[in-house]
Amino acid sequence: MRELRRDPLTGHWVALAPDQTPNRSAVALAAQDPLLLRSPSSCPLCPGAEIHTPPEVYAHRPPVGPASQRDAPGWSLRVVPHRYPALGIEGDMGRRSEGFYDRMNGIGAHEVLVETPDHRRGLHDQSEPEVEQVLWALRHRILDLRRDSRFRHIVVSRAHGQQAGATLSHPHTELFALPVVPRPVRERVDSARRHHEERDRCLLCDIVDHETAAQRRLVYENSSFVVICPYASRTPFETWVVPRRHRPRFEESPSEEMPALASALRMALRRLWAALGGPCYRLVLHNAPFVDRLVDYVHFSIEIVPQVGPGCSVDQSGGLHINPTPPEEAARYLRQLRELPESLPQ
Amino acid sequence: MRELRRDPLTGHWVALAPDQTPNRSAVALAAQDPLLLRSPSSCPLCPGAEIHTPPEVYAHRPPVGPASQRDAPGWSLRVVPHRYPALGIEGDMGRRSEGFYDRMNGIGAHEVLVETPDHRRGLHDQSEPEVEQVLWALRHRILDLRRDSRFRHIVVSRAHGQQAGATLSHPHTELFALPVVPRPVRERVDSARRHHEERDRCLLCDIVDHETAAQRRLVYENSSFVVICPYASRTPFETWVVPRRHRPRFEESPSEEMPALASALRMALRRLWAALGGPCYRLVLHNAPFVDRLVDYVHFSIEIVPQVGPGCSVDQSGGLHINPTPPEEAARYLRQLRELPESLPQ
Repeated sequence: MRELRRDPLTGHWVALAPDQTPNRSAVALAAQDPLLLRSPSSCPLCPGAEIHTPPEVYAHRPPVGPASQRDAPGWSLRVVPHRYPALGIEGDMGRRSEGFYDRMNGIGAHEVLVETPDHRRGLHDQSEPEVEQVLWALRHRILDLRRDSRFRHIVVSRAHGQQAGATLSHPHTELFALPVVPRPVRERVDSARRHHEERDRCLLCDIVDHETAAQRRLVYENSSFVVICPYASRTPFETWVVPRRHRPRFEESPSEEMPALASALRMALRRLWAALGGPCYRLVLHNAPFVDRLVDYVHFSIEIVPQVGPGCSVDQSGGLHINPTPPEEAARYLRQLRELPESLPQ
Repeated sequence: MRELRRDPLTGHWVALAPDQTPNRSAVALAAQDPLLLRSPSSCPLCPGAEIHTPPEVYAHRPPVGPASQRDAPGWSLRVVPHRYPALGIEGDMGRRSEGFYDRMNGIGAHEVLVETPDHRRGLHDQSEPEVEQVLWALRHRILDLRRDSRFRHIVVSRAHGQQAGATLSHPHTELFALPVVPRPVRERVDSARRHHEERDRCLLCDIVDHETAAQRRLVYENSSFVVICPYASRTPFETWVVPRRHRPRFEESPSEEMPALASALRMALRRLWAALGGPCYRLVLHNAPFVDRLVDYVHFSIEIVPQVGPGCSVDQSGGLHINPTPPEEAARYLRQLRELPESLPQ
């Protein structure tokens, strides 16, 4: 049974998904499992392998012809439920205590957005219109999942490379619709609320103003978005894509800003690619949870954390990040990459 | 200049240590740097290489003879300042705002506890008296660093294996004395305080009572310590070593409990070793920060997080951990390993 458990010391929720992958005993997990990083010929996300995924919930397909058929090849983008989901869509919430612990059933959605039919075409290698299509699909799925009143937040997370936690190399993004607001999300919202209460201004709006004026940590800007290396970067070359104007939720921001977001996100990824030679990275969408009255102070952003050099997370380090590369230096390097090669390292 | 910067959104402090390693440009960091994982012949922590570390601040040495000399071979344990420290001991605090950001100078101590002269003898391979000596040295260093009134918390962290973030393979533990209390530490303290306010009991005392009664997540117990797989384990085989009785601070717990702690810690590591075949892992001491009036509700523990399978930290995943191995299953497996082989996998 899938289950969500809350740690009483940290307040973090953990999804226990014992049946997530078949035939993997607890102990077999000890060894990294590179089997899932398949070549295109055996990739479950490639065209022709549609039978290996649950039926699609969304796709970009031509309107007529054989390619218009669901769960057949011919798509340019496809969203499917995860084959071994961490959370299941069916069942009751089962919120209850267990001793003095808090748990609930692992109710939620776990979807995979397959960004392209091309196994080797990472997000950084896609054209601006292709990246924009990915963003539109993401928006569509978030708007659809939001209709389910059991869900309180959607985590959107993209891993590139095994070192960043990816288990499949085909370009894809994962969505998790959750019946809880994760503690780190709540903390960000609380910080933003405190800032707003004191100053009557949005914290990320203030950061955008400060960074565009100071320029030192600015990597790129267009009419609607800025790309910065944040002041307290946890790792070398941590990079944020932030809307210039106050936009609480990605899926509610004006349609006409989507091309600019695609352009900024692609530019950020291509510069990181050129600077770091094809790094493993994680990308997270920081979005407002589905609770009312946040719109004044929550402002969405996309965070890209390259896995550069030895490092560890703050929750495994006792609470301290150590970063040898000041964001000013990272931003200067990324900024001066004016001429990006057409063909980037794989 | 070393600097501590606070992220206004998450409240986390990041140590920027641009000069941490010489000749590493921002971009050169892109590639993992395996050079620091040296063989014994070139290891800077091995006997005979004392000239490659700053002068020792503490050592276990024979009282007379050539081995009694500081910074010479013959020690059985040695503590030195880190050669490329993330934090520096000299200077003023320089607490100030930068725009609306918060920063201070990177004041603190960064020490390396070299646990053994033997390059290949990990903590799991050491005898109980040897592990106890490591704990005594740790206690001594914490008590000494606490005398500096600038410090508010000491992070004690041990990484085994490159995948866990270790940059040197010689068995060692790092200590960071900090002029701030890291946000995750503050959150744990706040959770424990709320529990205590409501129930007039310590949260970890309650966890110990619950787990020793329930038995399902119990791995090992002796007169003074229990070893458990925690209820909301973030990764497969996450393991905690917790004092049975209320002990706010490791360095203040009764001397007569040190052998039992060495025994429990060694048992936890050896079982993880036998179960997972020599995993990379991180070990963190969760200890009370140096502020008054915490003694009623803070209870120290040692947390061991093996790096098992693909995974990522909660701060890079958008706030959700996914764990395929229930702690009950991990604990059952670890518990039944009654006969541990004398020689464990390297």
